[in-house]
Amino acid sequence: MHIDKLIDSIKQKQNPTVVGLDPKLEYVPDFILNNSFDKFGKSLEGAADAIWEFNKALIDQLYDIVPAVKPQSAYYEMYGWQGVQAFFKTIQYAKQKGLFVIADVKRNDIGSTAAAYATAYLGFTDVAGQKIAVFDADAATVNAYLGLDGVQPFLEHNKTIFVLVKTSNPSSGQLQDLAFGDKTLYQNVAELIKDWGSNYVGKYGFSNVGAVIGATYPQQLETLRKSMPNTFFLVPGFGAQGAGADEIIGAFNTNGLGAIINSSRSIICAYKNKNCMQQDFAMAAREEAIKMRDDIIKALGGGTL
Amino acid sequence: MHIDKLIDSIKQKQNPTVVGLDPKLEYVPDFILNNSFDKFGKSLEGAADAIWEFNKALIDQLYDIVPAVKPQSAYYEMYGWQGVQAFFKTIQYAKQKGLFVIADVKRNDIGSTAAAYATAYLGFTDVAGQKIAVFDADAATVNAYLGLDGVQPFLEHNKTIFVLVKTSNPSSGQLQDLAFGDKTLYQNVAELIKDWGSNYVGKYGFSNVGAVIGATYPQQLETLRKSMPNTFFLVPGFGAQGAGADEIIGAFNTNGLGAIINSSRSIICAYKNKNCMQQDFAMAAREEAIKMRDDIIKALGGGTL
Repeated sequence: MHIDKLIDSIKQKQNPTVVGLDPKLEYVPDFILNNSFDKFGKSLEGAADAIWEFNKALIDQLYDIVPAVKPQSAYYEMYGWQGVQAFFKTIQYAKQKGLFVIADVKRNDIGSTAAAYATAYLGFTDVAGQKIAVFDADAATVNAYLGLDGVQPFLEHNKTIFVLVKTSNPSSGQLQDLAFGDKTLYQNVAELIKDWGSNYVGKYGFSNVGAVIGATYPQQLETLRKSMPNTFFLVPGFGAQGAGADEIIGAFNTNGLGAIINSSRSIICAYKNKNCMQQDFAMAAREEAIKMRDDIIKALGGGTL
Repeated sequence: MHIDKLIDSIKQKQNPTVVGLDPKLEYVPDFILNNSFDKFGKSLEGAADAIWEFNKALIDQLYDIVPAVKPQSAYYEMYGWQGVQAFFKTIQYAKQKGLFVIADVKRNDIGSTAAAYATAYLGFTDVAGQKIAVFDADAATVNAYLGLDGVQPFLEHNKTIFVLVKTSNPSSGQLQDLAFGDKTLYQNVAELIKDWGSNYVGKYGFSNVGAVIGATYPQQLETLRKSMPNTFFLVPGFGAQGAGADEIIGAFNTNGLGAIINSSRSIICAYKNKNCMQQDFAMAAREEAIKMRDDIIKALGGGTL
C-alpha cells in the first residue's frame, strides 16, 4: 500500500518527522526577497518567486535528513495563482529529491467535487483524452465533515490521506469534543477512519487512511494510538505551537512507528531564533531538523525504528 | 454590513438565485475547446483557457438576471495553478459585471493558517509594505470543524461567509446528524453560527455569517429557517442534485428573503439538456436562469422580494 512508501523512508532515514513548508514572506531572508523583487517587482509574482527560492534552498539542506515535507496551501494561495504555482514547483522539486510530499490542503466537498479535489492533488486530470498529473502529491489532508462521500474519492488514486480527527488549535474542542453518547465527535471520526481504511492496510499494518491528531492534546493522542492500531498519525503542533518530545511519544506504537511529527516555524525560521547569518538560513534549518530527529528518537528510547 | 450588498442585489434583480460556475471540461462546447487547444495545446493551459472563455460567455448572458455567481474552486484546481488563474479571472470579470461572487472553497485550518486563507479570498496580502488584493471575492464558504479559531479570521475583512451546516450530499448525515440529547452536530454548528454572527447584523436583519444548508434536506432547511432568523442561507442541491422549487421555499422567511438558491449544471449545461446549437450555450443558460427565477418567485407566492 502507498503508506508503506512513507514508512520505508522513515525507517531508511531513522526519522519520523516532517518539515512544514509554511513560507510566510516575513520568514524569507532579505537577500532572497530583494533578488525576487528585483526580478519581478514588489508584486504577487515577486512574492511567489521568493517563497519558491526559500523552499528550494530549504529542501536542498533537508532532503537527506527528513523523509517528508508538508507545504501548507494557504500560505501559497495568499499570493494568488502565482503562489499556487510556487506550491506546485515546491511539490515537484521535493519529489525529485526523494521526499514524500503531504499537500496540506484540508479539502472537503460533496462527492463529484471531492473527486475533482482528489484528481487535483493525487491523480491525473483528463484533457482531450490525455491524462496529465496536476499537483501530484503523495498525500493530502482531508476534512471529513461531509462524511464518506467527501472522503471516498481520495481513496481511488492509490495514495495516502490524513483525515482531521483532533486538531491542534485551542478551539478544536468546540465541535470535536462534543459528546454523542459515550463517544466524542472526534472519536466518531476516528471510528469512521478505521472503517474507511480497513481495505487499504499495508505491510507494516498501517492503512492509506491516516489521521491528523494535534501534539497539543497528548492525552487524546495516546488514547487514540491504542484504539487505532492500523492508523498512521500526522501530528502537528510540535515546536512553535507548544508541544515537545514528551508530548508526542504517545503517538508511536511499541515499534516506534505509527506517527510522523510536523514542525514548521521552529525549523524554517531557525536562523531567526538562533540569530545567525541570513545566508545560513537553510543550514540552520538542517541543524534544527537534526536536533528534532535526535530529541524524538531519544524520547522513544533510542532504538531503531 | 456586507451581506446587505447581496440582499440589495437580490431585491434589485428580484432574483434569489446564484449560478454555480463548476466548469468541467466536458461541459465546455467543442468550438471553445478547439480554440483554446489551438492557442495553448492540449494542456493544463489549454484547459484553463477554455474554462475561462466558457465562464466569460456565461457571465455575459447572466449578469443582468442573477445577483451572484459561485465558482467552485475544485474544478479549477483540477487544472493546476493555470486553472486557479482562470478562477481568479472569473472572479474579477464577474465583479466587473456587477455580480456578487461567492468563492466556494470550503477552507478550514488553525488560526494563523485560516487567517492566510481569509487574506487570500477576502482580504489584502502584504508584499513589502504594499497591500495587494488577491482573489478578492465577496464571500467564501468555510468549514467550521476546527471551531472558532478557524472561522474568526474570515470575519475580519468586512465581507461575508457561509459556514457549512447541513450539506446536500447523501452521506451528510454520517457526522452532521450525530445526536446528543436534543441537538444534532449540525444544530450545534447552527447555534455557533448564530453566536459568531451576532455582532455583524445588517439592515435587513441578516448577519455576515451565513450558513450552507442543502436543498436535498427540505425538512431541516425549514426547521433551521425558523431557528436562525438572522442567518442567510446558501442553498445548494437545486436542479441536478434533485431538489426543485417546492423543496426550497422553506429556506425563505415571510418577506421572501433569507436565502440564495444555487444551481450549477442545470444552468451551465442547459444547452446540452435542450439539445440546442453549441454556439447558443450561453443563451440557453440565460433562459434556464430566467425559468429558475420565475419558478422560485412563483413558489414563493409571486410577491415582491
